[in-house]
Amino acid sequence: MNKITRPDELQPMKVTTGPITGSRKVYAEVGGLKVPLREIPLHESAKEAPVRVYDSSGPYTQTDAGIEVERGLPRVRADWIKARAVEAYQGREVKPEDNGNAGKALAREFPPRNQPCRGRDGEPITQLELARAGVVTEEMRYIAARENLAREAVLERAGEALADGESFGAEIPEHITPEFVRSEVARGRAIIPANINHPELEPMIIGRNFLTKINANIGNSAVTSSVEEEVEKMVWAIRWGADTVMDLSTGRNIHNTREWIIRNAPVPIGTVPIYQALEKVDGDPVKLDWEVYKDTLIEQCEQGVDYFTIHAGVRLRYVPMTAKRVTGIVSRGGSIMAKWCLAHHRESFLYERFDEICDIMRRYDVSFSLGDGLRPGSIADANDEAQFAELETLGELTKIAWAKGCQVMIEGPGHVPMHKIKVNVEKQLAACGEAPFYTLGPLVTDIAPGYDHITSGIGAGMIGWYGTAMLCYVTPKEHLGLPNRDDVKTGVITYKISAHAADLAKGHPAAQLRDDAISRARFDFRWEGQFNLSLDPDTARSMHDETLPKEAHKVAHFCSMCGPKFCSMEITQQVRDYAAKLNRPIEAAKEEGMAEMSEKFKEMGGQVYVKPSQ
Amino acid sequence: MNKITRPDELQPMKVTTGPITGSRKVYAEVGGLKVPLREIPLHESAKEAPVRVYDSSGPYTQTDAGIEVERGLPRVRADWIKARAVEAYQGREVKPEDNGNAGKALAREFPPRNQPCRGRDGEPITQLELARAGVVTEEMRYIAARENLAREAVLERAGEALADGESFGAEIPEHITPEFVRSEVARGRAIIPANINHPELEPMIIGRNFLTKINANIGNSAVTSSVEEEVEKMVWAIRWGADTVMDLSTGRNIHNTREWIIRNAPVPIGTVPIYQALEKVDGDPVKLDWEVYKDTLIEQCEQGVDYFTIHAGVRLRYVPMTAKRVTGIVSRGGSIMAKWCLAHHRESFLYERFDEICDIMRRYDVSFSLGDGLRPGSIADANDEAQFAELETLGELTKIAWAKGCQVMIEGPGHVPMHKIKVNVEKQLAACGEAPFYTLGPLVTDIAPGYDHITSGIGAGMIGWYGTAMLCYVTPKEHLGLPNRDDVKTGVITYKISAHAADLAKGHPAAQLRDDAISRARFDFRWEGQFNLSLDPDTARSMHDETLPKEAHKVAHFCSMCGPKFCSMEITQQVRDYAAKLNRPIEAAKEEGMAEMSEKFKEMGGQVYVKPSQ
Repeated sequence: MNKITRPDELQPMKVTTGPITGSRKVYAEVGGLKVPLREIPLHESAKEAPVRVYDSSGPYTQTDAGIEVERGLPRVRADWIKARAVEAYQGREVKPEDNGNAGKALAREFPPRNQPCRGRDGEPITQLELARAGVVTEEMRYIAARENLAREAVLERAGEALADGESFGAEIPEHITPEFVRSEVARGRAIIPANINHPELEPMIIGRNFLTKINANIGNSAVTSSVEEEVEKMVWAIRWGADTVMDLSTGRNIHNTREWIIRNAPVPIGTVPIYQALEKVDGDPVKLDWEVYKDTLIEQCEQGVDYFTIHAGVRLRYVPMTAKRVTGIVSRGGSIMAKWCLAHHRESFLYERFDEICDIMRRYDVSFSLGDGLRPGSIADANDEAQFAELETLGELTKIAWAKGCQVMIEGPGHVPMHKIKVNVEKQLAACGEAPFYTLGPLVTDIAPGYDHITSGIGAGMIGWYGTAMLCYVTPKEHLGLPNRDDVKTGVITYKISAHAADLAKGHPAAQLRDDAISRARFDFRWEGQFNLSLDPDTARSMHDETLPKEAHKVAHFCSMCGPKFCSMEITQQVRDYAAKLNRPIEAAKEEGMAEMSEKFKEMGGQVYVKPSQ
Repeated sequence: MNKITRPDELQPMKVTTGPITGSRKVYAEVGGLKVPLREIPLHESAKEAPVRVYDSSGPYTQTDAGIEVERGLPRVRADWIKARAVEAYQGREVKPEDNGNAGKALAREFPPRNQPCRGRDGEPITQLELARAGVVTEEMRYIAARENLAREAVLERAGEALADGESFGAEIPEHITPEFVRSEVARGRAIIPANINHPELEPMIIGRNFLTKINANIGNSAVTSSVEEEVEKMVWAIRWGADTVMDLSTGRNIHNTREWIIRNAPVPIGTVPIYQALEKVDGDPVKLDWEVYKDTLIEQCEQGVDYFTIHAGVRLRYVPMTAKRVTGIVSRGGSIMAKWCLAHHRESFLYERFDEICDIMRRYDVSFSLGDGLRPGSIADANDEAQFAELETLGELTKIAWAKGCQVMIEGPGHVPMHKIKVNVEKQLAACGEAPFYTLGPLVTDIAPGYDHITSGIGAGMIGWYGTAMLCYVTPKEHLGLPNRDDVKTGVITYKISAHAADLAKGHPAAQLRDDAISRARFDFRWEGQFNLSLDPDTARSMHDETLPKEAHKVAHFCSMCGPKFCSMEITQQVRDYAAKLNRPIEAAKEEGMAEMSEKFKEMGGQVYVKPSQ
């Protein structure tokens, strides 16, 4: 290794820590497991229990977590994994080309080197194999507790059926048991991306009978970005709610950057191994071969990557189907493989070696994310022959991977107008045996670069409703450049909106709890409650403070939209008080006793403006 | 008038003028009418005609338009109106209470005072009455030309059927004729909001067989904002694409602010007259009566307001239906009327006097926007008894207004989860005889204050697809404060996305032209083309320049996402070149001659990175 230590690298790496405003990290003790969640306390005037929400942010949002990026996160899964059919072994030596022969520009290595482990030959190791064998793993129990949190609150408030959605065939139970998690994994309808070499992971699940998840992409490229930035982007993305993070780095230092990210990641990390393989052959797709690809897979398996995007569905005979497209092939992985296929005029080695790929990934329990290399890159190309031909192949590969014991999800488009979204889910479910769908957007129009978090957030909400299990975020910079910190946050929050809207529309039994809590806070003018229950308390508060900055206004019974004399919420409260003080059923008040009621109202002397009483 | 001239008021009012980056304003001469549109020229390498887009921005985006806010816009409709059955008359005297008794704080009056006119008794004057009488008005011809612009380009490229949408019963013709406009107006399925006292208006149409429109709300309140700001907000909102603007001002100076806005507005202006009426009775809804309301209607009719939101559907017996809601009544107009009804325990005077309201509005051709005073303000309250009870009443009132010769559209929610959106459109179309629907959002979740342009942009795209004719924007400040200039722009662009996505999904015959043009520019690495064809060229360019600022990069065949060595677009171009150079049908290339094709590819020697050739 040609490592040169630069002075600035001796500084400890800084990432964002501390609780999200107005909330605190708590851990539920569930059968010996510590399951994280975020608790948002409400003002005592609300007379409501704190609202507990799903929390993907890891120890970073814990008070005094003592984060040291140089040491990595606690290895919470280490004992669970050790008890399984695994063997530690020497592992592959890191080679200069793993970091793009960075030479003098080599990024610092992550200090501790852990010995990798792999599944023992012939014994069940993946969550799928264990599930099929009837084993309820610790991961499954952890996930059941994690997904269930909000539901318990619903069950406490008996009789309130919040779930009135249209699920399009999803079957979300009233209560998630570990056994339910096992059964969903066993039938391939959900995956638990959890490489046995990523013990720092807080397990999570991707499947349409669970909460809709979101992924954030990060990654340096030849043009910009550093290791520090990438680690912080990961921490920042999960802080705001990213459930998984894909490291799409290209260029130099891919290996070392990834090591820093994984060792500090409480969420599953996905990669596209062909990107690194390409770096190893000097960026020329034609030079790619099975050996360099296989070596890269093992390298990343040993590091602990939880899922791989593999574009094995880009078959030679599909490539010409894209020639008449408006935007051809827009997937990087897809275009690399297309070029390889054309140049050699051979079937894709990913397709031909798919069995061997499965055998490698199985031993580390790396999940497949079967890539849609031929996804449409424009409205004009949506749902075309090439796209759906590849989808059929992805279905075929799903069955092979399942037979090998591997977990699988399927990637989807792309750019799709609203009326063509639903059929994507229907075809995917049919072709791929209900394996989880993982879609990028889709963007519902091409005409708004700079706002593609929104063009895609619309499509994401809809496709999530129809059944997509995980939504891959798109930032405002899509098509224009690499996202910075603000872009990452904007992309994550937008996709949390889409995912939550999907959960509401699917009829998730507990999704509406948070909406109801924030709406009650809004109605009661509990401003702090409204801020703290929102997806982004800091932005909500600062926007409010732009027009009404004083602390007194935080308890004011009005807002700047109407001003003190003129407030619809205030008037509604009077309507409600009035109905209540009449002390009889609302129905009875409807038609009768008008004159008397008018008198009572005047006696109450309700002014539009009531002084804050808090 | 207690007018006090403040020194700063002697400065000419400044608004934003000049072309939108990368485009120019042109006027199509159509049968003696000058119809505005925006033309975006493309780089010569594109070998494509300039793209023409619908343009709501008025003369402000014309080069050297000589805008003088003190004089107002040219009175383009003056001669058309004069030729109809109208009479000029003295008009109502402006009273101190019209400006909230502003006294020393009175805003400057708009300098020219125009005499108002009204329709002559018993003669047809509204666009609806004229349409029914078989008259094709200038407004209808203007609108046909305006709505048609892009379609002509489609017709030129014969054989390319772009319209493959799902219209849910909308019947969008291949070509819009003036007669089609007339027939849609005659049957009440579209409206042309165009007060005869607003001759500055560039006519536009709202109906589900036309382009989906968007509205931007502006307005000062007791807490913040000035006349200058409001005029600039209007100019700014239409610059980015607002098709109509609602002035929702409260507090002082309502009359004078509105006058400045209307005299400078090329788009229809809407108001909620009850807001001003309330100011006239010191903000106490209980003191409202028919006389003050009627006086306010006439005041605003004479000024030239094009449509009034009137909450005549909030009937006394519906009010108790809201008492058990999570967020009660959130419409300001709705809550004012609810309070009035309860206090007096009488039926709403808006409902009881609806005939008289029609008679007033008809004489000026002010369109109804029948307000949904009981719209849901939270997910919990969506589609409830109160909301749909009011909708039935709005249907009843629609028929009365139509019988009186008035144009009508219907306002809709609000906060609605995705699975409950479609039935809103279905019920509205059925209850209101297909009168145009005009919806606020809807917001598909309550949990993201600060991002409600997005929560609502999702709902807006969907409801637009299902058949809403105009989408009322929501800004990021919704629920938090008054929008500033940036918020207005963000809201407008977000809603342009939703409206355009709806047009695409409905199968508008020409909507996809712009998507295709920008996607070709993207594929060809014509960066300037991609920026200029976007909804917001300035933002797209500045985001691009953050990572690749150099001018040379504007013609680079790569972007910062992949860097120069690693570009999917570039590879796709090679796939395409390759297929083309083989000089035979793509289909034939699929399965045969693999070795030969491989050789040809190598001969072409395509590197991944090709030096910019422009």
